[in-house]
Amino acid sequence: MNLSATAPSSPRDPIQAEVVIVGAGPCGLFEVFELGLLGIGAHIVDSLAEVGGQCTELYPDKPIYDIPALPVCGAQELVDRLMQQVKPFNPQFHLGQEVSELTRRDDGRFVLRTAAGTCFETGAVVIAAGLGSFQPRRLGVPGCEAFEGTCIHYRIRNARDLEGRRLVLFGKKALRVDTEKFQTSVPGIFAVGDINTYPGKKKLILSGFHEAALAAFAIQHHLYPQKKQFLQYTTTSPIMHKRLGVPD
Amino acid sequence: MNLSATAPSSPRDPIQAEVVIVGAGPCGLFEVFELGLLGIGAHIVDSLAEVGGQCTELYPDKPIYDIPALPVCGAQELVDRLMQQVKPFNPQFHLGQEVSELTRRDDGRFVLRTAAGTCFETGAVVIAAGLGSFQPRRLGVPGCEAFEGTCIHYRIRNARDLEGRRLVLFGKKALRVDTEKFQTSVPGIFAVGDINTYPGKKKLILSGFHEAALAAFAIQHHLYPQKKQFLQYTTTSPIMHKRLGVPD
Repeated sequence: MNLSATAPSSPRDPIQAEVVIVGAGPCGLFEVFELGLLGIGAHIVDSLAEVGGQCTELYPDKPIYDIPALPVCGAQELVDRLMQQVKPFNPQFHLGQEVSELTRRDDGRFVLRTAAGTCFETGAVVIAAGLGSFQPRRLGVPGCEAFEGTCIHYRIRNARDLEGRRLVLFGKKALRVDTEKFQTSVPGIFAVGDINTYPGKKKLILSGFHEAALAAFAIQHHLYPQKKQFLQYTTTSPIMHKRLGVPD
Repeated sequence: MNLSATAPSSPRDPIQAEVVIVGAGPCGLFEVFELGLLGIGAHIVDSLAEVGGQCTELYPDKPIYDIPALPVCGAQELVDRLMQQVKPFNPQFHLGQEVSELTRRDDGRFVLRTAAGTCFETGAVVIAAGLGSFQPRRLGVPGCEAFEGTCIHYRIRNARDLEGRRLVLFGKKALRVDTEKFQTSVPGIFAVGDINTYPGKKKLILSGFHEAALAAFAIQHHLYPQKKQFLQYTTTSPIMHKRLGVPD
């Protein structure tokens, strides 16, 4: 995996991506895994210099007791385990880079730029930027109200379509999503983990994992609507084994 | 934990339960855990003589690759890990017993009986009986149509209120639930794991874990509607540590 910052790409020559995931915490990492199982590659952007989000930044040594089938797991250990799990899918990391702009094109694809100058053209965006213990603050930047709450980590200063209409993504603090696709009000922009909200939402890492899994199927359908979907199990499917690098 | 079959209890002297979980597969076990974190005790009934459901019965040695943060985990190992995780909550197991009757009383509580003669009076029921690779079959028993699909593992022959009205729990094959509480059409009866359905449902173990977590909160509210709910984290909460038996 390439964990170093990428060389800035010219806006004229953007990185062509299937999916860009904003946020390299546990849910962002598991989104890489679920997309990978479906044969979809992902780039992952984080404002922090390291992967792991809050787990790594705020409480790396603290034990977590409610990850299913891990009776006790250190927060950094959880991140390390997820990094091990995504290895077969070779995600491209772009760390230490805030998202500075997200624009939806008329053809439904997105242009995403970071403050470091990296530019992506992508078919879908997953916002996995946990609010965590951070409080949203008002930036006072005209046009960014819709993104308050994400602004601490991800200063998405502009999210507009090409005609200047602001993309309204969420309510007061969190991104409102449906519970089928975990898609925001903007088709092609998904949100998983602490940043999203829906009836019954609990900010649990294990919920983010489920959200990431269902979002992956929805993203596959968004990108490749003609493709027939069927659930394959990692226990038995030769295609899954091939993608995971497991000998059959 | 008491894994032996309980002595039959008289219908006149039923076991008083907060919650009865039907199905001791991974999702049923994790339901015990999530209820335990909320201070709620559970009895768990399974028609099989051992815990683990499909994992233990059908593919104990097969590796699973998509349990979050467990890059590879044998199916039996997954069950063993979950059994370790539920230990602090001392669940009462009633194995090798099919559910034979489920009746809703006028006061909203349930009477659940097993073919082995165990009788519970309970405030809530969680059906965690995975359909798995089993196909539903028609039993041809009048009154049980509503339960076809659950009938292979759990022959719930009668589910009626005291006036003989049949409790309609689901559609053709799976139990239809909402995605906030994972409750069936009968208040107080919840369903998690492979047996339930909702828009976007995928039969993934990790989805069952999320469903179990949200159902636990809904069950707490169902049993104790006056109680204020707030999410406490196992990483930091002294109450969670006390329940888990972790020294602060």
